[in-house]
Order: sequence, then C-alpha cells, then structure tokens
Amino acid sequence: MTKQDYLIKNRQTLELIAKQLKESSLRSGFHLRDIKSACIDLLEHFESLLLSPLDQSENVVSELSDLLEKLHGAANQIEKLYPKKWTEAATDQLMAKFLDYLPSLQEELSLDIQAAMDRDPASTDPLEIAMSYPSIRALSHHRLAHMLFKEKLPLVPRFINTLSHQKTGIDIHPGAEIGSSCFIDHGTGVVIGETAVIGDHCTLYQGVTLGAKSFPKNPDGTIIKGQVRHPTLESHITVYAGATILGAITIGHHSIIGGNVWLTQSLPAYSRIQQSRYQQNFFTNGDGI
Amino acid sequence: MTKQDYLIKNRQTLELIAKQLKESSLRSGFHLRDIKSACIDLLEHFESLLLSPLDQSENVVSELSDLLEKLHGAANQIEKLYPKKWTEAATDQLMAKFLDYLPSLQEELSLDIQAAMDRDPASTDPLEIAMSYPSIRALSHHRLAHMLFKEKLPLVPRFINTLSHQKTGIDIHPGAEIGSSCFIDHGTGVVIGETAVIGDHCTLYQGVTLGAKSFPKNPDGTIIKGQVRHPTLESHITVYAGATILGAITIGHHSIIGGNVWLTQSLPAYSRIQQSRYQQNFFTNGDGI
Amino acid sequence: MTKQDYLIKNRQTLELIAKQLKESSLRSGFHLRDIKSACIDLLEHFESLLLSPLDQSENVVSELSDLLEKLHGAANQIEKLYPKKWTEAATDQLMAKFLDYLPSLQEELSLDIQAAMDRDPASTDPLEIAMSYPSIRALSHHRLAHMLFKEKLPLVPRFINTLSHQKTGIDIHPGAEIGSSCFIDHGTGVVIGETAVIGDHCTLYQGVTLGAKSFPKNPDGTIIKGQVRHPTLESHITVYAGATILGAITIGHHSIIGGNVWLTQSLPAYSRIQQSRYQQNFFTNGDGI
Repeated sequence: MTKQDYLIKNRQTLELIAKQLKESSLRSGFHLRDIKSACIDLLEHFESLLLSPLDQSENVVSELSDLLEKLHGAANQIEKLYPKKWTEAATDQLMAKFLDYLPSLQEELSLDIQAAMDRDPASTDPLEIAMSYPSIRALSHHRLAHMLFKEKLPLVPRFINTLSHQKTGIDIHPGAEIGSSCFIDHGTGVVIGETAVIGDHCTLYQGVTLGAKSFPKNPDGTIIKGQVRHPTLESHITVYAGATILGAITIGHHSIIGGNVWLTQSLPAYSRIQQSRYQQNFFTNGDGI
Repeated sequence: MTKQDYLIKNRQTLELIAKQLKESSLRSGFHLRDIKSACIDLLEHFESLLLSPLDQSENVVSELSDLLEKLHGAANQIEKLYPKKWTEAATDQLMAKFLDYLPSLQEELSLDIQAAMDRDPASTDPLEIAMSYPSIRALSHHRLAHMLFKEKLPLVPRFINTLSHQKTGIDIHPGAEIGSSCFIDHGTGVVIGETAVIGDHCTLYQGVTLGAKSFPKNPDGTIIKGQVRHPTLESHITVYAGATILGAITIGHHSIIGGNVWLTQSLPAYSRIQQSRYQQNFFTNGDGI
Repeated sequence: MTKQDYLIKNRQTLELIAKQLKESSLRSGFHLRDIKSACIDLLEHFESLLLSPLDQSENVVSELSDLLEKLHGAANQIEKLYPKKWTEAATDQLMAKFLDYLPSLQEELSLDIQAAMDRDPASTDPLEIAMSYPSIRALSHHRLAHMLFKEKLPLVPRFINTLSHQKTGIDIHPGAEIGSSCFIDHGTGVVIGETAVIGDHCTLYQGVTLGAKSFPKNPDGTIIKGQVRHPTLESHITVYAGATILGAITIGHHSIIGGNVWLTQSLPAYSRIQQSRYQQNFFTNGDGI
C-alpha cells in the first residue's frame, strides 16, 4: 500500500486526529513560531555585530540596523500575543534602553574575552576566543537575554537561552546575575539558575550546577514560584568541573571549590574544599567495576 | 602551487586513495544518507505537528500528511537496505500502528509538559515549555523512537536518538522505557541506557547517568549483547545533577538521590542518599587546587 | 513608533555606536569569517568522504577533491591573515602531508569503529556506528585537527574543535594525543586538554575531564603558557562517567576509574578506584534534599 493509499483510506482517522490535536492545549498562539524564528535571526545578527570582525564601518551600521529590526520585530509579535503584558510603549522604551546598553555590553564582552585570555593557558589570540569559545558565546547571549528579562519582555529571553544552550551546552536562566570578567571554560553541562548571583572575576568549569534544592509549597501542594532559591557566589571564586552547588547559600569570595563536590551549605571567604578521598577497591568482578 | 595543480599532479595518488576508500568497509549501503536525511525531515514535521502551535486545522492535516510521508519514506528505504529484516508488510503495519499511537502520544506529551510546569519554579507558560524545554524535545523524540524500536524498524530509531542528543544534550537509547509525567530538567549530559526502566512521576536533572557496569563476556571474549544491564527506577523518584547509577539494580519508589553520587547497588523505597561530606583542605599550592 | 522611525531619530546615536564598535579590538581580521565558513564546509566534506557510504568511485574522487579544495582555501586565508606565521610553502607542505595521512586516518577510524562495536553492547552495525556515534564524529574531527595542529596551521584546528564540540558535546583540544582503538561512549561533557595523552585501547564515558589544576605564573602574574599540565593515560584504561582527573599525572595501564571521582594524583597500573561510599540521610526537610 502506498502512502497515498493510507491517506485516502485513513482520511476519517486523520481528520479525527487533526481535530484532537487542534483542540489540545497547544493549538493557540500561532505567533510563537514567528517569535522563535525572529530570535534565531536576532542572535545571528547579534553575533555578527559583536563577536565577528567587520571590515568596514558601513557593515557595522548595516548589521546594527538588522539587529534592531529583528529585536523590534520580536517585540511587535509579543505585543500581539500578550497584549495585556506588553504594549507598543513598552517596545519603544525597550528599543531606547537597548541602544543605551550596547556600548557597555561591548565593554563587558571585552572583559569576558580578556578573562579567558588571562586564565586559559591554551588561549593564544583574542580573536580566536571571540569567535570560538563557548564561554563568550554563552555570556554574550546571556547578557542580552538578561537585559531583556529585566525589561520584562515575555518569551524572547527564554528562547535566546534555549538557542544558546543548544549551541554551547551552557544553560543560563535569563534571570541570573553575572558580574564582570567571567570565564566559563569548556562549559558543556553548566547550569545557572534563575536567582543565582555570580560576582566579578569568577571562573566556572564544565558541568558546574548552581541550582535549587526542593521547593517550598503552597497549601494546595503547588510549588511557590519567584523565591530566591539559587546560590550567590561572591567575587574571585573558582569552581572546578562537575561541582553541584544547590540552594540559597553564599560562597565567600576567593573560595575554590573542587570538582564533583555536592555542596548545599554556605562557605566563608577563602574556603578550599574538595571531595572526600576515593576508595581503593578490590572488585568482586575481576574484569571491571 | 594552486589547488588545481595539486589535483593534476596528484591524480594518481588521489585515485589510489579513492580506491582504498571505496574498498573500505564503509563503501556500501548508499541508502543510508537518504535515511538519515529522511529522519531529519521526520523530526522537523514531528515537532511542527506536536510541539508548535498551528493556527488552522488545514495546517494540522497538512503537517500530519507530511509527517506520515516522511516516516513512510524512511521505512521504504529500510526495506531496500535490509530486505531480510524489513518488508513492505512491516511498513504497512508500522504506519497503521503509528496512526493509532498518535493520540496517546499527544496525551503523554501533555503530561510531560504539565510535569515541567508543576516541578520547575522558573516555568511560567505551557507554550514556552513546549517550544523551548530540552526535556519536552528529548522526551517527544524518545517516545517516537521507542515506538519505532518496539516495532523493530532498523536504524531509524537510533538516528532519531542521535539527532535528539545533538539538539538537547540528552542521550536516551530508543530501547529505554520511560513512564508518564517525566521531567528531565536542563538535561545536558543525561544518558539513559537501552534496558533502563523509569517509572511514572520521576524527575532527573542534568548529567544523570542510568548506565551499565562492565559486561559479561562470551567464551570467545566478545561481550554478550541484549542482556538487562541498566537500572530500574520505580515511581516518584528524583535524581539530582550528575549522579551516576550503574547496573541492573532497582531504586525504590519515592527515593531521592543526591547529586554526583556513584551508585551501583539497589535501594529500598523512600531512600535518601547523598555524597559523603567534602574535605576542608589546606593546599600545598596557596594559589589553588 | 516604527523601526524606521527609530533608525532616523537615532541616526546620530547609531553612528556613534558604530564608530565605537568599529574602533574596538574586534574590528580587524575580516578574513576570519571566511576561514570559519571554510572550516564548516571542510568538516562536511570530510564526513561525507570518511564517515558516509558513497555508492560509486567517481563520488569518492569528487568528495575528495572538494575536501582538498576546502582545506587549501582555508590555508590560503590563513596566509593572508597571518603572513608572518604561515606561507604559501607551508600550504604546499600541508597539502602533501594531508594526502599522505588520509589512508592511515581511514585505518585509525576503522579501529575506532571496531572499538565501539567491541565495547558497546547496544551496538549492532558498524555503519550505524560510523554515521551516528558521537565518539566517531569527535575522534575523526580530532584526528584531522591534531594533524593540522602538529603542522602549526593557525586557527583552523581550533575552529574544527569548536564545531565538533558544538555537534557532539565532546571538547578535545587539537593538541591532545589520542592513541588507537579509542571509544568515548555517549560523550556529552567530555573535556580533554591540550597536553593530555591517551594510550591505545582506552574507553571514556560521558562527562570525563582530563584537565589542568591551577597554573604556575610568571613574575608579572600572568600564567605561563605551553607547559604540560594535563594527565597521561597509559593503555587499556576505562574511566566512568563524570570522573574529573586533573594535573600532569599518570594513570597506569589497565586501570579502572569509577564515576564522579576527583583525582589529582598518579596511580599505578591495574588500579581500581571509586568514590567513597554515599551517606544515608535523614533530611531536615521531609520533602526532599
């Protein structure tokens, strides 16, 4: 039986399924596709402008215009989708703030690039860092998403986060506050939660989690949203690969956290901790573990 | 010397290399490219249909037709590549089962979306979850791949797994059995093995492994394939970031496994375990670890 | 206000920002985009040639020609960007060495595919492994990047690494030396540093780090670059998921390292280590951790 035969034979079933799908909770908000697509374009122009070399000033103006157009377009779509949460006036204000923010964003990214140059012995060239380090890509996307998040633009910050996570393996919630001169080396598997705070001059390695413990609940059993529930890292802290740090705790400045530790308590400044020593084993199965 | 010069000068070498490459073990099965390409298209239409909002019912029917066409096309290619393992009758049966499965798949995904809504304090909107959470993307791909795996369709389930792993950082073997209302938060680095079983209402965080220990071997030294070798998680279990759980063990229902533990033994229901306490260190090198 | 209105109203601001951006440290080296783009094409043709089945010998020659053309093109761009570091003669030598290397590269990849076949009980088909396992993708990219790195071609090896990391979640610095019959199962989050050495017949699971500890510094406070600072793994070693192994230490042959350990000391041959035993806990919060 060919595929065409199926479609004819099963026309009634198909229409029933289509009806069910259409009535399901996802069959609304058809602007979402346009918004997601606008976010993909937005990040492309953002990277072209801020992280790629351009040869001539007219290209800078042209990339900048494209970037503004994409941001404006996404905000317009949000107006249509969430008219109660977002207005044309909000879009106007957002565009003005974004223009104001661009020069300091450029400055912040320069400091992030310098941080990678200073702390990674394998780095040889700021251009190489700007164009190839996941740290710079993730931080630049995050600094953009965080600015939009603070302006309370719905959906767009989260889509930027998702796209960035997909490209870098680094998942930073748009709400997280990250200080200057940050370096996230390698980065795969890093998770930084919504209410996490990271001070200046911090270094995180791959697989580090700044996450939440179990959540307080409302009387009806649903979790309470919007509480501070993630760690605060003060300044000049290094966290090695795979450390899991959970809860609304504070890690004091100049601390060093060893790899693969499980940490749910605050630590004073200048702390040095590492996992308890491994066991030397005689295995029951001589072939392995 | 230009590239053209190279090609002329090295014509003989090129042909020798080409001959070697052609004779190598990979120079067969040229339908594979078409199958991989069909899988990429398949997932696109699958996501359009099940995870993106559509504005009108004719779009639902059209996306559904495209999805069926891609699945049918991939199965046809498999017939040509593995005529002993897969027949036209098998394709017919597969298409019928897939149509039957679609409504319950839609229902399962609704429960997965609700699970994310219930358990992630940062979530605000089911649409945002459907369109941006790696958990939903990975679970929807897996539930499709698992259905095809149970029908014994060669290759396609694995290609879906690979594409999904690439997009989400979550690697679920198509053979794994995953219950309803599952939530894989953030997800980067999660690995779920072929014979793993996960009960209803479980939550996994990023970097969790449900893997295998060393493998029993045949007398000739090759490993025995097809044995149960991965963990079973009963229901209502939470596993925090980076926990590595290996072997054909069982974790009892309502257990909570702390982050970064190494676990190779079964645990009773309502267990609570975490890594042994970290060490406070005086380092020999004052600068760090 | 429309986006056009913004651009007119803010023309002066835009030009000022454009001027600042143009003067910033990133506004040089406009060939970089072409090089990155050439690297993307290069990897595509490389995978087509070495990891995908081709049906006819003319396709092999055509793919091979395309691959050589892309490599030559990238090297030409490097000449323009770094005339002091790279010359036309260097490009000529590189192309000759690359042609010499191709047959043994093909042989190395066959051994890597066989290693996956031998060690993964879920594997069923060498073609499936070649076309879908992140291990093969990452190792093939790395073996190419490492060859170019040893020839001291600037930038290109690093871009290949970045693209491969993005696709597989496996981050191998082009400088790392990896022996034959290597298998990196699942792979997400694996990091292998610049001066790491891995012997023959080794297996790494997802999330394994072969990284560096803190770095010795110059009198001026900058870190010393180019020192050996990563682990050496001898042969026949297995490292389970999430183990973090740091520093210029040596792990003896036939050792097995358990998951999630933190290891900064050398180990003799045939070592077996695993994380110290977890704690069974009574939690203060009955709901979880």
